[in-house]
Amino acid sequence: MAPPEESKLVAEAKKIPVEPTHYSYTERDVILYNLGIGATEKDLQWTYEGDDEFSALPTFGVIPQFLASSGLPLDWLPDFNPAKLLHGEQFLSIKAPIPTSGELVNHTRLLEVLDKGKAAAVTSVVETRDKSGTLIFENQSTVFIRGSGGFGGQRTGSDRGAATAANAVPKRTPDAVVEEQTSSSQAALYRLSGDLNPLHILPEFAAIGGFNKPILHGLCSMGISGKHVFQKFGPYKDIKVRFAGVVYPGETLITEMWKEGAKIIFTTKVKERDTIVLASAAATLVDGAAKAKL
Amino acid sequence: MAPPEESKLVAEAKKIPVEPTHYSYTERDVILYNLGIGATEKDLQWTYEGDDEFSALPTFGVIPQFLASSGLPLDWLPDFNPAKLLHGEQFLSIKAPIPTSGELVNHTRLLEVLDKGKAAAVTSVVETRDKSGTLIFENQSTVFIRGSGGFGGQRTGSDRGAATAANAVPKRTPDAVVEEQTSSSQAALYRLSGDLNPLHILPEFAAIGGFNKPILHGLCSMGISGKHVFQKFGPYKDIKVRFAGVVYPGETLITEMWKEGAKIIFTTKVKERDTIVLASAAATLVDGAAKAKL
Repeated sequence: MAPPEESKLVAEAKKIPVEPTHYSYTERDVILYNLGIGATEKDLQWTYEGDDEFSALPTFGVIPQFLASSGLPLDWLPDFNPAKLLHGEQFLSIKAPIPTSGELVNHTRLLEVLDKGKAAAVTSVVETRDKSGTLIFENQSTVFIRGSGGFGGQRTGSDRGAATAANAVPKRTPDAVVEEQTSSSQAALYRLSGDLNPLHILPEFAAIGGFNKPILHGLCSMGISGKHVFQKFGPYKDIKVRFAGVVYPGETLITEMWKEGAKIIFTTKVKERDTIVLASAAATLVDGAAKAKL
Repeated sequence: MAPPEESKLVAEAKKIPVEPTHYSYTERDVILYNLGIGATEKDLQWTYEGDDEFSALPTFGVIPQFLASSGLPLDWLPDFNPAKLLHGEQFLSIKAPIPTSGELVNHTRLLEVLDKGKAAAVTSVVETRDKSGTLIFENQSTVFIRGSGGFGGQRTGSDRGAATAANAVPKRTPDAVVEEQTSSSQAALYRLSGDLNPLHILPEFAAIGGFNKPILHGLCSMGISGKHVFQKFGPYKDIKVRFAGVVYPGETLITEMWKEGAKIIFTTKVKERDTIVLASAAATLVDGAAKAKL
């Protein structure tokens, strides 16, 4: 089936030039990120720069591109209101070993805009490269902008493999489960890695967004669950999640994982409210790691 | 009484030139410091840069000068061994409102070296100024170097007011008490403010120092207790502590405070081991704050 025709609005939006953005970081930023997604003093490979295996947790890959993807202009959408924006999905592909410090460059482009009727679903792609031009990360971020649909665009997206897979959960009990209580200051710490949206710390602002109190960053929950996948199955080359519900700092996340070949399918729920917060989620293990410890 | 004659060794050491050091920081560094001494998402003035009263906690004043004072050359001491060094006392005087970001310059000088027989007690002074030359902080740090005494120097120090006061604890019950449990990751977080000594995170290194496990930074305990003083009595213009014992991350600090005019005398103990960790400690309230809430 031929893909539905792209609306003229979207075709024009794709022509808006987006300047590359730069991100420079040190080992300290790596540790701060790792602590922000719950690494502890017991995890010296993630919190002590002198450790022989010192490294960024894989989901660090969403950090260098964060301002690039969130800075993509969207005001060409009908009735665009940034307060109506929700992060829907994130796909991260890790293309090369993650440097523990350096300068990276992000190239952002608009990939796809779907007309969901009541909302627009906008997917952007950011390629993050080191100074030599080596591709380190590719991110695909999908945001929903409520109130910006109905512009006559295509309704269903293209199949982009792991980035759009439904990742249906097997019917058996999970192969691994990790439970971790977040700290009540988790968002206050995580935000220092770059997402300073007051939604995550200012009660008045959270109330405007319709929440009882500030919510944890979706990418923080993704990082915590991504850490659980790593702890149970080892390194992976990509990870994708759909943000299905909010987490309040201090709540307990339970990551349930199923191994299907090289793919780890997982869902994450909040224990206290028995609510799914990450769905349609999976990570693809790096070649050779598929037989890692259970 | 005339001061005892300074040894020639010390007189010569004072002539060793010390280059000024620079420290630049952002609001993010201020928040990271504040979180490192236990500020939380409830303390928006300390953890949210957009708050109308956003500020560094007063003890942030030890941070810009840390590498300057700890970098003072001491290898002129007899049998100097950096592994035998213990931080003995810290005095911080806050001379001007603390910028929440900026570039500061530290000028360090050797102030006094006492011969304690089995150890040398070295006091350095660091003046921290902004780019316009305004004095922001003065720090006096005293370190004990075990095994470096017996060089024939003076045994007792000069009276330097609040910096050397004994701060005897009144016999009455404390006027205020604050209890705070540190996090087991407290040192892993606090170290990102500049003191990367592996003593505070690496178990093998702590063992070499004679400790069962990594210990919390003394200046972190000072910051936590300094926060308690601020919370109970408001802003102060100087603070001094003697490091009397170690704290293990995860332990609970109890700060007992007595108000004596404009002076808040305090001691800090570890609840779990009923051990004093900060002694001879006091802060001097800023003029007008002496009548602050109890």
